[in-house]
Amino acid sequence: MKALELNEIITYLVDLQQSICSSLEKLDGQSTFKTDNWTRTEGGGGASKVIENGNVFEKGGVNFSHVYGKLPDILKSETRTANYFHATGVSIVIHPQNPFVPIIHMNVRYFCMSEEENGKITDEWFGGGIDLSPAYPNEDDTLHLHQTLKEVCDKFDISYYPTFKTWCDDYFTIKHRNEMRGVGGIFYDHLRPKNDEHKHQLFSFMQAVGNSFLPIYAEIVQRNKEKSFNEKNKEWQFVRRGRYAEFNLIYDRGTHFGLRSNGRIESILMSLPPHAEWKYNYEPKENSDEAASLLFFQPKNWIN
Amino acid sequence: MKALELNEIITYLVDLQQSICSSLEKLDGQSTFKTDNWTRTEGGGGASKVIENGNVFEKGGVNFSHVYGKLPDILKSETRTANYFHATGVSIVIHPQNPFVPIIHMNVRYFCMSEEENGKITDEWFGGGIDLSPAYPNEDDTLHLHQTLKEVCDKFDISYYPTFKTWCDDYFTIKHRNEMRGVGGIFYDHLRPKNDEHKHQLFSFMQAVGNSFLPIYAEIVQRNKEKSFNEKNKEWQFVRRGRYAEFNLIYDRGTHFGLRSNGRIESILMSLPPHAEWKYNYEPKENSDEAASLLFFQPKNWIN
Repeated sequence: MKALELNEIITYLVDLQQSICSSLEKLDGQSTFKTDNWTRTEGGGGASKVIENGNVFEKGGVNFSHVYGKLPDILKSETRTANYFHATGVSIVIHPQNPFVPIIHMNVRYFCMSEEENGKITDEWFGGGIDLSPAYPNEDDTLHLHQTLKEVCDKFDISYYPTFKTWCDDYFTIKHRNEMRGVGGIFYDHLRPKNDEHKHQLFSFMQAVGNSFLPIYAEIVQRNKEKSFNEKNKEWQFVRRGRYAEFNLIYDRGTHFGLRSNGRIESILMSLPPHAEWKYNYEPKENSDEAASLLFFQPKNWIN
Repeated sequence: MKALELNEIITYLVDLQQSICSSLEKLDGQSTFKTDNWTRTEGGGGASKVIENGNVFEKGGVNFSHVYGKLPDILKSETRTANYFHATGVSIVIHPQNPFVPIIHMNVRYFCMSEEENGKITDEWFGGGIDLSPAYPNEDDTLHLHQTLKEVCDKFDISYYPTFKTWCDDYFTIKHRNEMRGVGGIFYDHLRPKNDEHKHQLFSFMQAVGNSFLPIYAEIVQRNKEKSFNEKNKEWQFVRRGRYAEFNLIYDRGTHFGLRSNGRIESILMSLPPHAEWKYNYEPKENSDEAASLLFFQPKNWIN
């Protein structure tokens, strides 16, 4: 089997970004993505595509990047012999207007290292995931997410879904509040190819995850985007967005890596909500939908 | 000279909290502080006093705490022989309604450690500071802040103001944006008493800093609270509050210490703005007041 080239991964990711943006624009029906191309002084760059003040989406980013060059010091602990690296991926965070449409996050990425510049790869891996952060409980949407992800995973390895689902629940915990960011999904990292064939399989898995974004999210957006909402619902959405910002700024490894490795700040922080609130000691009323959501967001086996 | 007792520090801090809250209530003229008493399972507790939705203050916290007991693991690197500690202080963050009234932050604290519970002190220090985060440039207010702080400092040690002013500028830098949180003030830590007399002096300095809060802030609030503002001003205030949240969640040591040492979350995060915004790649228009503020916030020698 022919060895997989980095360019094949990059081509896929660029196409994925384009097709997701086109479909989200159609869903929105009002705003379009603006492209912001950027370059990294030390090597590589990316294209951030951002939608703002749409009919359905208040703020969303679909970012592609391919950065490379000398391995930053911050990554040196991960490896002993590598001096050079390539990292490429697509990252998405969408903050919808309607409090009944959940925030979605997706990332698929590939990383490789070598001793010489563009030399023989000494270590490489795939990582990624999709997860949903609704403000309100919605069992149908949550099942749609988890069932789709399980089907995607099961085609590759039946251990993937349970492992990556648990990993996601662990990762997206707001530890200081002992609270989940949302209803999870899957999260995986450091999937290392054992040989050329396995690398093709892991690339296929990356594609399967990337390609599941639209079927998952378009369905959920369609179901909920016309729902009517009131001031109370918006307030709760803003409170939950505050939690989202807390998680990303305090715990998210990608965010911290980006900030400390002199990444492009606006592309990294596009994940932050357009508008968030922090009220002192805010507690939802007993038996309210807001109180129910906090119970709903606890890690559960959604499918068996 | 009689050794200073911990209770004298605590009495001062509780009185300071009370007098600041009373004065801020008068300034606000509408809302009052609500008290939230809390206890810490491992020893001690505090009183969080919070004002919300006031005429002048949108959200503000004036917190007193005195916690003690076995030294948490997270602090063990700071000392070799201590097993027990006391920490007490007052922390304030005020987010005003009017975008021309700056956010203020103040903290005064005392920390001591001992081998035995409540035994002979093996290490102790005072720390604190006051700093201002306006959304718009205001030279008069900035000079009032720095001049008052310099007068306070000079009565104790003429090296204090320049040292603590620079420390403050360094500390309140939003590193990933190479931007200041505001116009600084003073920041100091680990002021260790050399003997009983020196400890009394350091306590007097704590009192002088604490007592300077009202003369500094009441004057600045009075000057600006009736200023008219428009949508653009509010938007910029929300963007600057987003920066404030970024700083506190990513860099602030007190916040991280609190979150990792099982502190009281709502008291720690009362510093977060009631309402913040993140717009993608937001850049103020050339020659606008908003653009001017970013230049104004650079560290400067305000007084010579």
